Amino acid sequence: MAMLAGAALVQAATGEIAKDADLGGAEMHAEVTGLVEYLAEDDAHGLELAREVVAGLGWQGCAAAPVEYHPPKYPAEELAGAIPADYRKPYDMRELAARIVDGSVLRDFKPGYGAAMVCLQAHIMGQPVGILGNNGPIDPDGATKATHFLQLMDQADTPVIFLGNTTGYMVGTDYERAGMIKHGSKMIQAVTNLRVPKISLYTGASFGAGNYGMCGHAFGADFLFTWPNAMTGVMGGAQAALTMEQVARRAAARKGIEVDEARLAKQRAGITAHFDSQSDAFFTSRRMLDMGMIDPRDSRAVIGFCLATCMEARRRVLNPNAFGVGRA
Amino acid sequence: MAMLAGAALVQAATGEIAKDADLGGAEMHAEVTGLVEYLAEDDAHGLELAREVVAGLGWQGCAAAPVEYHPPKYPAEELAGAIPADYRKPYDMRELAARIVDGSVLRDFKPGYGAAMVCLQAHIMGQPVGILGNNGPIDPDGATKATHFLQLMDQADTPVIFLGNTTGYMVGTDYERAGMIKHGSKMIQAVTNLRVPKISLYTGASFGAGNYGMCGHAFGADFLFTWPNAMTGVMGGAQAALTMEQVARRAAARKGIEVDEARLAKQRAGITAHFDSQSDAFFTSRRMLDMGMIDPRDSRAVIGFCLATCMEARRRVLNPNAFGVGRA
Amino acid sequence: MAMLAGAALVQAATGEIAKDADLGGAEMHAEVTGLVEYLAEDDAHGLELAREVVAGLGWQGCAAAPVEYHPPKYPAEELAGAIPADYRKPYDMRELAARIVDGSVLRDFKPGYGAAMVCLQAHIMGQPVGILGNNGPIDPDGATKATHFLQLMDQADTPVIFLGNTTGYMVGTDYERAGMIKHGSKMIQAVTNLRVPKISLYTGASFGAGNYGMCGHAFGADFLFTWPNAMTGVMGGAQAALTMEQVARRAAARKGIEVDEARLAKQRAGITAHFDSQSDAFFTSRRMLDMGMIDPRDSRAVIGFCLATCMEARRRVLNPNAFGVGRA
Amino acid sequence: MAMLAGAALVQAATGEIAKDADLGGAEMHAEVTGLVEYLAEDDAHGLELAREVVAGLGWQGCAAAPVEYHPPKYPAEELAGAIPADYRKPYDMRELAARIVDGSVLRDFKPGYGAAMVCLQAHIMGQPVGILGNNGPIDPDGATKATHFLQLMDQADTPVIFLGNTTGYMVGTDYERAGMIKHGSKMIQAVTNLRVPKISLYTGASFGAGNYGMCGHAFGADFLFTWPNAMTGVMGGAQAALTMEQVARRAAARKGIEVDEARLAKQRAGITAHFDSQSDAFFTSRRMLDMGMIDPRDSRAVIGFCLATCMEARRRVLNPNAFGVGRA
Amino acid sequence: MAMLAGAALVQAATGEIAKDADLGGAEMHAEVTGLVEYLAEDDAHGLELAREVVAGLGWQGCAAAPVEYHPPKYPAEELAGAIPADYRKPYDMRELAARIVDGSVLRDFKPGYGAAMVCLQAHIMGQPVGILGNNGPIDPDGATKATHFLQLMDQADTPVIFLGNTTGYMVGTDYERAGMIKHGSKMIQAVTNLRVPKISLYTGASFGAGNYGMCGHAFGADFLFTWPNAMTGVMGGAQAALTMEQVARRAAARKGIEVDEARLAKQRAGITAHFDSQSDAFFTSRRMLDMGMIDPRDSRAVIGFCLATCMEARRRVLNPNAFGVGRA
Amino acid sequence: MAMLAGAALVQAATGEIAKDADLGGAEMHAEVTGLVEYLAEDDAHGLELAREVVAGLGWQGCAAAPVEYHPPKYPAEELAGAIPADYRKPYDMRELAARIVDGSVLRDFKPGYGAAMVCLQAHIMGQPVGILGNNGPIDPDGATKATHFLQLMDQADTPVIFLGNTTGYMVGTDYERAGMIKHGSKMIQAVTNLRVPKISLYTGASFGAGNYGMCGHAFGADFLFTWPNAMTGVMGGAQAALTMEQVARRAAARKGIEVDEARLAKQRAGITAHFDSQSDAFFTSRRMLDMGMIDPRDSRAVIGFCLATCMEARRRVLNPNAFGVGRA
Repeated sequence: MAMLAGAALVQAATGEIAKDADLGGAEMHAEVTGLVEYLAEDDAHGLELAREVVAGLGWQGCAAAPVEYHPPKYPAEELAGAIPADYRKPYDMRELAARIVDGSVLRDFKPGYGAAMVCLQAHIMGQPVGILGNNGPIDPDGATKATHFLQLMDQADTPVIFLGNTTGYMVGTDYERAGMIKHGSKMIQAVTNLRVPKISLYTGASFGAGNYGMCGHAFGADFLFTWPNAMTGVMGGAQAALTMEQVARRAAARKGIEVDEARLAKQRAGITAHFDSQSDAFFTSRRMLDMGMIDPRDSRAVIGFCLATCMEARRRVLNPNAFGVGRA
Repeated sequence: MAMLAGAALVQAATGEIAKDADLGGAEMHAEVTGLVEYLAEDDAHGLELAREVVAGLGWQGCAAAPVEYHPPKYPAEELAGAIPADYRKPYDMRELAARIVDGSVLRDFKPGYGAAMVCLQAHIMGQPVGILGNNGPIDPDGATKATHFLQLMDQADTPVIFLGNTTGYMVGTDYERAGMIKHGSKMIQAVTNLRVPKISLYTGASFGAGNYGMCGHAFGADFLFTWPNAMTGVMGGAQAALTMEQVARRAAARKGIEVDEARLAKQRAGITAHFDSQSDAFFTSRRMLDMGMIDPRDSRAVIGFCLATCMEARRRVLNPNAFGVGRA
Repeated sequence: MAMLAGAALVQAATGEIAKDADLGGAEMHAEVTGLVEYLAEDDAHGLELAREVVAGLGWQGCAAAPVEYHPPKYPAEELAGAIPADYRKPYDMRELAARIVDGSVLRDFKPGYGAAMVCLQAHIMGQPVGILGNNGPIDPDGATKATHFLQLMDQADTPVIFLGNTTGYMVGTDYERAGMIKHGSKMIQAVTNLRVPKISLYTGASFGAGNYGMCGHAFGADFLFTWPNAMTGVMGGAQAALTMEQVARRAAARKGIEVDEARLAKQRAGITAHFDSQSDAFFTSRRMLDMGMIDPRDSRAVIGFCLATCMEARRRVLNPNAFGVGRA
Repeated sequence: MAMLAGAALVQAATGEIAKDADLGGAEMHAEVTGLVEYLAEDDAHGLELAREVVAGLGWQGCAAAPVEYHPPKYPAEELAGAIPADYRKPYDMRELAARIVDGSVLRDFKPGYGAAMVCLQAHIMGQPVGILGNNGPIDPDGATKATHFLQLMDQADTPVIFLGNTTGYMVGTDYERAGMIKHGSKMIQAVTNLRVPKISLYTGASFGAGNYGMCGHAFGADFLFTWPNAMTGVMGGAQAALTMEQVARRAAARKGIEVDEARLAKQRAGITAHFDSQSDAFFTSRRMLDMGMIDPRDSRAVIGFCLATCMEARRRVLNPNAFGVGRA
Repeated sequence: MAMLAGAALVQAATGEIAKDADLGGAEMHAEVTGLVEYLAEDDAHGLELAREVVAGLGWQGCAAAPVEYHPPKYPAEELAGAIPADYRKPYDMRELAARIVDGSVLRDFKPGYGAAMVCLQAHIMGQPVGILGNNGPIDPDGATKATHFLQLMDQADTPVIFLGNTTGYMVGTDYERAGMIKHGSKMIQAVTNLRVPKISLYTGASFGAGNYGMCGHAFGADFLFTWPNAMTGVMGGAQAALTMEQVARRAAARKGIEVDEARLAKQRAGITAHFDSQSDAFFTSRRMLDMGMIDPRDSRAVIGFCLATCMEARRRVLNPNAFGVGRA
Repeated sequence: MAMLAGAALVQAATGEIAKDADLGGAEMHAEVTGLVEYLAEDDAHGLELAREVVAGLGWQGCAAAPVEYHPPKYPAEELAGAIPADYRKPYDMRELAARIVDGSVLRDFKPGYGAAMVCLQAHIMGQPVGILGNNGPIDPDGATKATHFLQLMDQADTPVIFLGNTTGYMVGTDYERAGMIKHGSKMIQAVTNLRVPKISLYTGASFGAGNYGMCGHAFGADFLFTWPNAMTGVMGGAQAALTMEQVARRAAARKGIEVDEARLAKQRAGITAHFDSQSDAFFTSRRMLDMGMIDPRDSRAVIGFCLATCMEARRRVLNPNAFGVGRA
């Protein structure tokens, strides 16, 4: 059914007693207005027609030629055990990457500079990729290094994989004076402007601006998945609770009154529980803040398939409508 | 203040006891990070600095050369009385336009075809314009005519003024079969793709898809104002009430039960009141669905000023950033 | 010989007695003016040189990679019998198309709307194509549908095959009022502006503006062939004769005189014979109004070869002259 | 009246008895098909409407700002007497140019090289122009010089005036060996490719390829006029007659027979008369081979007006149709 | 004279005894090769011809419309006394700028960040400009600030004035570790890539890479002038002498021998004198390392004239050579 | 080590006693400034890292598909004996080319025009090429022909091989008058502007402007090699000596004194020896005026490898840096 107004509205507006099928049924549009191109008998037939139409576009030759590659040396099964469930326990992202890339071969980019920001070059199913991972919060050096790395990937037409596990950017006087804001924003600018495929995976914490820098929900990843253990939010529950406690204590001190410790403890527990429950991957994924939850052991298979899809999509081109039809 | 984390969060996260001014005060950014270009002493000073910066861009020469023109022959004061307050009483849009354009000179485009869709050519303060106005609901012929007119205005680089007063597109079996959907969508496509300045005015009813076709809130008008008597919404209150009544009656008929007339009457009254209260210009304008309410008698002055602003804005150009700075 | 003036003219103009070979013989140009690049001994040698030059352009790699496909299910031999020799007897173009395309697989585009204008999607030797065919005169709906179909083919970079058999666009009060002129001209605009390869075949009648809409002689087909039974002209002989008879009868009625029936009958017979003799494919093809006559049974082979040629030609590119040579 | 088929044809084709006004009258199109934009009451009204539409395009500001200039020092009246009526009597083109350009100030370009090809720089009513004129047949040096001059005018965005009076390019062994063909074709290429306005005037002889090189009928002049004394053709009558005589004598010599002198004399007279009659400006102008005949004394006024028209036309721009309307 | 080889070489190479005038004299080229466009009788005539040619290009309308502005509040005469002759005595560049710009009105860009690098916005004779000046050596912050400032000027299409007085970029462990190299190179990249007019003035020291950053000799300034007191070189003499002394002392220490203090003192004096003599503005300007020496009191007049020249030059456009001439 | 100033300069300039490793050592840049991407342990490791980085660019698919071809019919070994060691003894360049190209198949371009300038079309290892060679000095016709040939190669995207053996362009009155300067400069313009790969080989003399025309050192050859017997210089020694002798004799004659023949003879001998020693391939190649000396018998292998390299390099593309990073 496709009409400007259905039978009820038509009767209300004009008094005409009409049938919906006459106003905008599929047969009517197929024969009278010409708004139907292919008339399907039912849903199954509709899907079949859609497949035929796409098959007729001549895109069969757009997939990449097959290349040879090696599987990772380290088994994907270890991903389930090797990564700590608690995001507060850091681990080396190279361990994760080695279970995803061809031959477990990684090239480390500026490993000694901004060391907690891990930048790696590797191949996945024969396709060169750049990988960004976190071994801790991002400091000014790390943000600068990530920016440079992303510019290079963009120039070399190499897709970027984000393996996010970060509590955010560094805070405090020293880091502010070192220009944390401007260096962090450079990294976010780079993520935003990348022209190469971006594939993002939530593998642990993804808090605050760190979520932006590691290509979170709003940053245009071509594909974005989450692991079951991931936590996403403005900040962690304990940190949020402490922050609000500080706010309360300072307000009390300014007013010269004493704090109600019991009330504070209750507030702290409440905030922690509230934040943690809404940061949970099962909560956030259900709200469509990613494209689905995957088993960590499937990471290589999922990323490899998404990469091939992205690269093929670039070769499928439709011409823009080039000539006007004068008389409307 | 501009920092990644304020004092409270910093203490919570790291234990450091810091001052906000040290973390991100204006003086700090002016001297340490370099993120401040001009340090203002207070708001007034800040505005003064902003004016100086813009004045330094050298855009003084971008306004159009002054041209001579005649005022309308018919006085703007008549606008207050000539236009019926009740949108259900139609009037000839040419009466309105004649009180806005230079010398009240109008050229009528295809007046006998799709006659309720009024397309006029005229000048406002010396600037050629195309004007779209409604003398009733838009039918397939009117939509086709409007599309053609908008294509021509776009080709001739002529701004378009929308004087909207419409209860929408025509509904009913005859109009659906005549392709109301496709002809209406052509008109909306044209409105969306116009490259010339668009200035829109709500002068009466602006309901449903008619709001789209007459360049309503979401269709990228450069300027969009409302008169106090205007009504904006999915449809008028009485119409909505009748439609819902029909839905109820049909459902009852399908189920073979009788309708509760008293309940229906109450529902009708409620819907009418609810719709009408939310369609009111004072209600919609307060919710930022336009850029402000104007006295109908100021229409020419406001449109003329907006036109000059649009034309000058096109001559003010900033270069894109043209050279990369290699090391981020 | 290539000279501005031959020996006779030279002597007349200047008195000089010269030999043509000295004025512009091949040897002279090869050695003195440098206007000869490769000096051929005779025609055969010239063709051999031309082949060598083209072979040296390095275009061997421009042909498409071979793909697999099925022959039509229905034999081409049936084309000779299935299509009526008299263009006044209509037949279903799908019968013809099914004997040309891969596996006889056709996808019908808007079959119930403007039904006499047949729009099909299929493959020929693995190449996706759009096909336009006529099951009768083109009405406003049919012209609208063909325009839309051609826009889509252009966007999808799909070549279009025109299988023309039409006595033209519909005439008469009803069709005129339905906008036959504007809808027909939209279709002709689309045919003119197509950027994809166009291959056209005259398979029956091709009269009047129908010849334009079905990509006739002047509409830039990459290849245009005719079947032996085709008729091409402003209109059919019988129709022309009747039209002229009507003109005569109306003129007589206006002047209040009686018509000379014997003279009218003679005129009718003369016009019919004259039109039909000049519409005949053997007459029109001899006058170079197409690129040759083909046996209907060869249609698939000819179209397939032309398609491959068009697609390869797009990959053969010559650089424009990019640097000026200062002193002429 | 605008219809696909008139009443007579409709009756012949379909039997329907219709009126032309119903099939395609102006009122019908204004109200039913929408193909009429502005309905004129009569011719005078139509012209008035057309003027209004063009006036509404906002092109009033496209004319050039007025500049000051001097009239020629030498009076235009002398043009009537100074130029010989017989094209075989050469004269100095500078005499002609001095009666057309501002202040009679001419700058001579390479006057000593290819001296019969006159290239001048000057102003006409304040607009810089380049002028090409002939003081005799064009030789290789003259063609080379003209080519270089045209390239420079094109680069400097300066319009070119062609004052043609030439019997063509030089012929004979010496000129052929000097590459007359290639140097002449360079000049014709340059004339063809000029992007600046071209205004051409036939002032005497314009024969053969000289007509091409001096921007004759087929070479895209924006404006092309002729003087009454001009002669245009493949060659002059006497020259054509002599050429044919030579052909006859040579054929006779080859066959070993004697020529019939009387017949030859008659043929010579016939050819001369025939050529001369068809070369005459009154003959050629009547056949639309130029845009009109002008009084030599009006040359400056005509060229100046045409120049202003060309320069203003460049500033009047229409946007191409930029957005498609999806559903045809 | 313009020839490939003169008479002497010709005789040596071929034995031919020729005259230079015949080989490549002006008359020969004017009449034989066509390489002379306008033959001048002497130098004065040549200049006159050149002026006529340029006047014929129609560029009279390219100068900017005159605007009103105020002279500086502080007199230019003070420039002679206010600026110390010894470049080692720093002074505030704002004192200098205030004697050059309209109304002595300066807007300071990031004055507290990288404070020795002075970035100012102002107008000169009505034209908006950005000004770069040095109040000491350039540190990483100062280089970063200058880069940002130059990017903004480029985007706003605002010309940049360089008032150079710098001993270079900061050296030493701290500055190196702060990335002096990369921040300095960014500034030099920005200077190199600017698309707006650049006008440079040597007003004191201009040493080493500081010369690059402040748009010295090789960095494409549209105009570059020097004051008489300026010093330009790799470094100052005393600094160079000390550097070489250190080299000698270290070499001696490595070899375990004693230094010859008398010899070192002599070397020191020699190097100082040598460097200083070659850094002197009278020495460097004589070697064409700038476009001339100006009186400091003329700085505003010179810069204002150069700015107007640059802005007018942008409006004078020559078309690229657009059509090839096939046969070379 | 990479720093703005080393330890010695730092101490001289600031008194600080620093270590070079702290100022700019690799470890420092790897960890502090981030200027090191990959820290190599030694040279071998550095090369290994570089190979890995390039291998990661995904350029494996850029080499051309292999094609079949025939070796030359004539053996390369004959090159060692067939070419005279003394450049004054000319030989036919076709003999040389036939030992380099596939199947020894050559197509001669305008062989009879400007005959000493040899232009050939052929294939090398399956790749179409154009070849320029010298059978003597270049005259105006030869230069014109070479220009045309180079334009065609550029349009057909065909690489050009220069086999240089020329004492330069023709000199003397006749050649000057024939426009040697302009025709020679056209050829040099064409060589300069070629967009196709250029590979150059010094096979004998390469003197004066002939070195420019045959794509010598400064003309941007992608690859440029020399044979051991080649001589490169402004002119040959004997010619230079004679030229200087003429200068002396003329000076003496002008002053009316006698020449000192003994001194002249000594000067002649000295100049000859000096020029010849500096023209020798061993002398010039050592000074990097080419990219290396090759054995003539390796010419085909070297050129074939270079061609494949050039064609592959065109398919390896880096994106330009497309997004700015706002805060420098």
